[in-house]
Amino acid sequence: MRRYFHPDPEDICLPEVLFALSDATRLGIAVDLSDGGERTAGELGGDIAKSTMTHHLKILREAGVLRVRSEGTRCYNSLRLADLESRFPGLVDQLLSSAARCGYTSADARR
Amino acid sequence: MRRYFHPDPEDICLPEVLFALSDATRLGIAVDLSDGGERTAGELGGDIAKSTMTHHLKILREAGVLRVRSEGTRCYNSLRLADLESRFPGLVDQLLSSAARCGYTSADARR
Repeated sequence: MRRYFHPDPEDICLPEVLFALSDATRLGIAVDLSDGGERTAGELGGDIAKSTMTHHLKILREAGVLRVRSEGTRCYNSLRLADLESRFPGLVDQLLSSAARCGYTSADARR
Repeated sequence: MRRYFHPDPEDICLPEVLFALSDATRLGIAVDLSDGGERTAGELGGDIAKSTMTHHLKILREAGVLRVRSEGTRCYNSLRLADLESRFPGLVDQLLSSAARCGYTSADARR
């Protein structure tokens, strides 16, 4: 089973989180996952090229925004809501609601 | 007098604002200006090379985070707090207080 790097909660850095979310597709992925659910890259990306989605998900994961869980041959992505909330209280809720209000949704991840 | 481009409030985009703030120096500049004051590049940057500060201030200005005002031969930078608040209610306060809590201050702009 492939192991993915995830930063420890105390190593999550604000500039890296902001960079990870500074792209319409990645912001859309985060909004899509803000219900606390898990999605595969295919479910998140729709028609986006697999290599492009892999790149976006890697940036989100390495910044500490996403967690990836392997199960058999599939990988499930979820937001690290509790870790982000403990690191930056109130910020991620505010960011995701601003993003949703501006119209960034999972549809952006499928453009 | 040199004219600087500033996006209209309705053209300020969330991903661009997040990108502008995804750097420790630029985050420190924004925290430094969050008192509503105006600063010259020299006051903000300290020992940072002038060309580097010009680059950082341009990214912040073009994203709609900063406003630049010319007066004689000097340029004064201030945060567009009201425009950002009307565009993304609650977000910028939350972002700047998270940044200040994580220790990003004007000192980061002088590293």
